[in-house]
Amino acid sequence: MNIGIVGLGLIGGSLGLDLRSHGHRVLGVSRKAATCERAIERGAVDDASVSLSLLKSADVVFLCTPLGAMEATVDELIPHLTSATVLTDVGSVKGWVVRTLEPRWANFVGGHPMAGNTETGIDAAQFGLFTHAPYVLTPTELTPIEAIKTVEGLVQPLQTRLYHCHPDEHDRAVAWISHLPVMVSASLIASCLDEPDRAVLQLAKALASSGFRDTSRVGGGNPELGVMMARYNRDALLRSLTVYRDHLDQLIAQVAQADWTAIEARLCHNQKARPEFVEVPPLEA
Amino acid sequence: MNIGIVGLGLIGGSLGLDLRSHGHRVLGVSRKAATCERAIERGAVDDASVSLSLLKSADVVFLCTPLGAMEATVDELIPHLTSATVLTDVGSVKGWVVRTLEPRWANFVGGHPMAGNTETGIDAAQFGLFTHAPYVLTPTELTPIEAIKTVEGLVQPLQTRLYHCHPDEHDRAVAWISHLPVMVSASLIASCLDEPDRAVLQLAKALASSGFRDTSRVGGGNPELGVMMARYNRDALLRSLTVYRDHLDQLIAQVAQADWTAIEARLCHNQKARPEFVEVPPLEA
Repeated sequence: MNIGIVGLGLIGGSLGLDLRSHGHRVLGVSRKAATCERAIERGAVDDASVSLSLLKSADVVFLCTPLGAMEATVDELIPHLTSATVLTDVGSVKGWVVRTLEPRWANFVGGHPMAGNTETGIDAAQFGLFTHAPYVLTPTELTPIEAIKTVEGLVQPLQTRLYHCHPDEHDRAVAWISHLPVMVSASLIASCLDEPDRAVLQLAKALASSGFRDTSRVGGGNPELGVMMARYNRDALLRSLTVYRDHLDQLIAQVAQADWTAIEARLCHNQKARPEFVEVPPLEA
Repeated sequence: MNIGIVGLGLIGGSLGLDLRSHGHRVLGVSRKAATCERAIERGAVDDASVSLSLLKSADVVFLCTPLGAMEATVDELIPHLTSATVLTDVGSVKGWVVRTLEPRWANFVGGHPMAGNTETGIDAAQFGLFTHAPYVLTPTELTPIEAIKTVEGLVQPLQTRLYHCHPDEHDRAVAWISHLPVMVSASLIASCLDEPDRAVLQLAKALASSGFRDTSRVGGGNPELGVMMARYNRDALLRSLTVYRDHLDQLIAQVAQADWTAIEARLCHNQKARPEFVEVPPLEA
């Protein structure tokens, strides 16, 4: 199959490596000529160009740009596609993406491969990045069944864990497990930095170990990603933040009231439930 | 030197292993005869007993029981000690410990070796647990200089990073980097579990990966430890929780107002500051 990839970063480049290894012809488009050259060198694409016209022969196009560039990119891309071309994206938010792109292209399927690492760019692309990782597809009642099957047929052989859900369900789920943790963790760092006593702040920095390191990790990450989550998933994130604040308020009240029994019950419940989130589930049948 | 250790768990047992390897004679006391036997087998002590009378020849006693047992243990221990015996503890909270034990024993030095792992008990004890880890001593204006020097002389050869501070400074510092993270992380798990839509909750569990895993780790840990932090470090924890809630409220307001510039500035500040907490400082001169 002829596969187009727009945006040759970590995700686009890694998809190219994997899809080529499964026998597809991969055509890549990047705004930068140097990225196109590097993608060819790395074997992530068969051919690459700064022009979207390269994709006129594509059967399927993966849109791998940042969320903020998707709308304009698709408007520019559409004149080059045949109506049979299936368009899918890899954005980490789905409600906004589907509402924006579905009216523009009938053969559109929202998607979100949940893989990555802290590196970015074509040089970070790697084989097998998506192996055993969740790959969420968010078709709506308007999405053609054949388009869904086409995307499934491409990503299932990469040994992804495939899920289907409504775009809003996806956004609520990732608000809990991906976007809320960033905000919770960011507020931890910010509040520690507010310590007014210089000696205490210095001591805190010196004594911080694995507990602080893990809890603060995602809050100390890429600021653009954090802003993107808040911007494109605002409703679901606010919904999660509000529930979180309620729980925090309850906990603060329990500490203030010295209600150790209630705090212990809360922590026991957490300890019991957390493995349901962190143990990898089996592949969907 | 004759060293007494009361409480032969992970910390007490590991101290015994290290101190014996530095040529000291180590006498251990546990409430359980089986623990005494195991400590001898493991080489953590030269001799062990369920009776505190074993410690009558000790030059220094390390109190390694849980915080809740310290007061009663010291009252029971005192009749067996000579007045020259230096008493120190390893509790993770210092204000309460020092206020409780200092009036009972003139030669008392508060201490907190900040090492550990998820295991507990004598079988988890290991050589070198304290190597390169912070060891905080919290003497007051009442603490005899010689007692401080004696404890330093024992723990410095273990290649610990030695710090001195006031007990309340210690408690404020660990509230930020150890106790607040537990409460922040616990509230994250609890709020995710509050998702009312079963499909979304199931999806959240399936999609959770390293971001959620790291941010939720300490909040899903040992409930007794969490309660202990809240109970014995209540004032400092409430102080940190209050600042944290203010930051969370500011962030929620910024998301609600779509103030992406402010959120980006906040996240950039975090990204820049976090390494000051997570990079290990050099040994104190």
